[in-house]
Amino acid sequence: MNKEQVLGCVQEILPEAIDRLKQYLSYPTVSAQHKAIPETVDYVVQMIHEAGGETKVLDDLGGNPVVYAFFAAGSNGDASKTLLYYNHYDVQPPEPFNEWHTEPFTPTVIDGKLFARGAADNKGDLVARLSAIKILQKQGGLPCNIKFLIEGEEEIGSPNLEPYLRQYKDLFAADACIWEFGGKDESERISMVAGIKGMAYLELTCTGADIDMHSSVGAYVDNAAWRLVQALATMKNEQNEILVEGFFDGIEEPTADEKKFVSELPFSEEATAELYGLKRPLITKAKGVDPREAMVFHPTMTICGLDSGYTGEGAKTVLPKNARAKVDCRLVPGQDPQHILRCIEAHLKKHGYDDITVTMINGQKAYRSDFHHPFVAHVLDTARVIYENEPVLAPNSAGTGPMYIFGEQLKLPVVSTGVGWVGCKVHAPNESIRLKDFEEGIAHMVVMLSGFAQALSLAK
Amino acid sequence: MNKEQVLGCVQEILPEAIDRLKQYLSYPTVSAQHKAIPETVDYVVQMIHEAGGETKVLDDLGGNPVVYAFFAAGSNGDASKTLLYYNHYDVQPPEPFNEWHTEPFTPTVIDGKLFARGAADNKGDLVARLSAIKILQKQGGLPCNIKFLIEGEEEIGSPNLEPYLRQYKDLFAADACIWEFGGKDESERISMVAGIKGMAYLELTCTGADIDMHSSVGAYVDNAAWRLVQALATMKNEQNEILVEGFFDGIEEPTADEKKFVSELPFSEEATAELYGLKRPLITKAKGVDPREAMVFHPTMTICGLDSGYTGEGAKTVLPKNARAKVDCRLVPGQDPQHILRCIEAHLKKHGYDDITVTMINGQKAYRSDFHHPFVAHVLDTARVIYENEPVLAPNSAGTGPMYIFGEQLKLPVVSTGVGWVGCKVHAPNESIRLKDFEEGIAHMVVMLSGFAQALSLAK
Repeated sequence: MNKEQVLGCVQEILPEAIDRLKQYLSYPTVSAQHKAIPETVDYVVQMIHEAGGETKVLDDLGGNPVVYAFFAAGSNGDASKTLLYYNHYDVQPPEPFNEWHTEPFTPTVIDGKLFARGAADNKGDLVARLSAIKILQKQGGLPCNIKFLIEGEEEIGSPNLEPYLRQYKDLFAADACIWEFGGKDESERISMVAGIKGMAYLELTCTGADIDMHSSVGAYVDNAAWRLVQALATMKNEQNEILVEGFFDGIEEPTADEKKFVSELPFSEEATAELYGLKRPLITKAKGVDPREAMVFHPTMTICGLDSGYTGEGAKTVLPKNARAKVDCRLVPGQDPQHILRCIEAHLKKHGYDDITVTMINGQKAYRSDFHHPFVAHVLDTARVIYENEPVLAPNSAGTGPMYIFGEQLKLPVVSTGVGWVGCKVHAPNESIRLKDFEEGIAHMVVMLSGFAQALSLAK
Repeated sequence: MNKEQVLGCVQEILPEAIDRLKQYLSYPTVSAQHKAIPETVDYVVQMIHEAGGETKVLDDLGGNPVVYAFFAAGSNGDASKTLLYYNHYDVQPPEPFNEWHTEPFTPTVIDGKLFARGAADNKGDLVARLSAIKILQKQGGLPCNIKFLIEGEEEIGSPNLEPYLRQYKDLFAADACIWEFGGKDESERISMVAGIKGMAYLELTCTGADIDMHSSVGAYVDNAAWRLVQALATMKNEQNEILVEGFFDGIEEPTADEKKFVSELPFSEEATAELYGLKRPLITKAKGVDPREAMVFHPTMTICGLDSGYTGEGAKTVLPKNARAKVDCRLVPGQDPQHILRCIEAHLKKHGYDDITVTMINGQKAYRSDFHHPFVAHVLDTARVIYENEPVLAPNSAGTGPMYIFGEQLKLPVVSTGVGWVGCKVHAPNESIRLKDFEEGIAHMVVMLSGFAQALSLAK
């Protein structure tokens, strides 16, 4: 099929696909808050059966269930080649509610955009992939075997995924993997990655007392909020340099080749500033660092949340009993989340803050796939068929996911691509996808799957 | 009447007084949240009428209404002498709700303690004072004129009280004033003050972007939470020393006499640590400062609240668009809240944080009354009649209130005493008074009022 034929097939199934996606998005599957897990799993299984697949719901190793799906190659297809899709059915918390223009779990189409928590991350991608499968089945059967791993704890750091992948290594065995997400950048180029950053998501808590106190006692009682502020201020300086000893241990220097790819990534400081409404210049500017290099190669330490005492309207004169910070360290290949935790604990102790406790909520290693693999070339080539602009490939994304476990257990090349866009606001209020991107994402998967077995065979 | 007779009279009216107080406490009069103001005013007026007083509800100068009450001296009393009571009908926000063992606005007696938001601060005191008036009226009439000023914005810093006191100076004219609060300390001694600290309650806000972002952009996007943390860390060092230039300008050195009083105040570090469940030593310890001196004579800078990004359960990987801190500076005589605001703004600018906005939510000057006035001696002497232990007098409290305006407009001596206790948890969950203290507080007011005119006449 050529581009027009494929897009024609997409048009035929589109209304049904959007209805299915809206239904899927109406489940408030917030893993951090233990919400709507069983109902969402049931609906995922139902969607796979409707698309002609078989399922196993794995829930024997703890955590939210992992859904395995299998679609067999058609009689004209090549059953010796298997593609694995990785998706997750859980979503980020929708808070703060008051900043949503629509209800986060009432999917709403406005001006060609579908707004809902999870639209871009990652429910839209699953429905796009299943829709591509339906189109291929109508055309005479699948060109290869297709598997899915759809987990329910990605947004809390996939804490239980490793045992499932180890235990069910043979079930999930495949020749290559398409990762969960992707989308168009600010130049409307589809942006793909062949790797991912790691993460150490930490909660720092300083407890000063058993109860909140009247703030007048601040003359002699120590203040947990001040202690936390002062402790945090020792961890990073005003130039945004991370000061924790050992934090950079083990980092693998990127290859010249990786650096070259990164230097060619598109990036517009102006477009980024405009998109988020930034009030200050990029932090890389003062240091003369290329933001693309920072995005791909540099670890981060971000405060995701601060919480202490009274945060409502007006004044409450309270000396808070405790203070908490959520700190997200994005890691690069070679860094170990457990080592990061130990370094931060040692740092706090060294600076006299051993009363501040550090809990790791989410720890994952970074991973870079082999992005010279013919599978990667095939995904790029087929993207060129469907997308108007030249696609972009980065050695790893700035985001995180459990790719390291896949690489270690399944030993396969991984490319991530999806139906998002630069303004899709994942993890923020008013998350959306554009229906045009959803259509093109389906079409890309149709073309990619059609040539998948051949591309891999030729390569060998 | 001797002590036993007075306590006997208190017993007679006690059940009715407790019922009235419970009803009063059931109004959720949270001024910071604009709640239940008109209903509470109506109930205050009703209580005054029941006690035989007349009222004027003043609401022509903005803000929540100020209730004026007047009770005329009886035929045997001295109508040339007038005592003024200062009270407020508003309360602090009850949050965090989940730490209350009872509902904050469902007054509940457990083991001789009455739990409710506002029980100690300051609704219990108003009912105790009105109860004393009822007892004296039953005994043949009031021994002097009595006025009340009952305002509804004390917990948000009395932002509109000054114009009322200026406009209605003659209406509120009196010979002396009993201030709103007081109570027993950790040694069960009734603790009074003849002054009060001032306050500059500030909100610092750092805005980094228009929207929350995915935390992966932390590699190049500036983080409002980090900026606020680093800015705050320049304002106070790890030894809890305030580093803002000009903050200490104008402070009046306490007199030798004031210092002597303070050095004799009871204070137990162990009892304080036990009461609040403190995890760390007092901050005065390392500096070799007497906590009593710090409490009375030293200004403070306390973080009352921190708020940024995601503060719920688990992980949300967000780079917050903004971060806020609520900072309460308690001031001593000579400091000016407006000057403090300007100093902090200048400090932030000097340190490169001119993007952080500072808003003053509440600004009040400190005040010290003349604590050698015979009225002060009379309040102390009559306390000795009722209370088992020797009373304690401090030149000023560690807390705050609009006493400076009273002193400036009405030129009268002020003493604060009330029905609280050391564990009454004002401004915190599970606020309470002990019914025993409520009884004694009523009895003290009966005796104090009985000799008030004479004490003041003798003194002249």
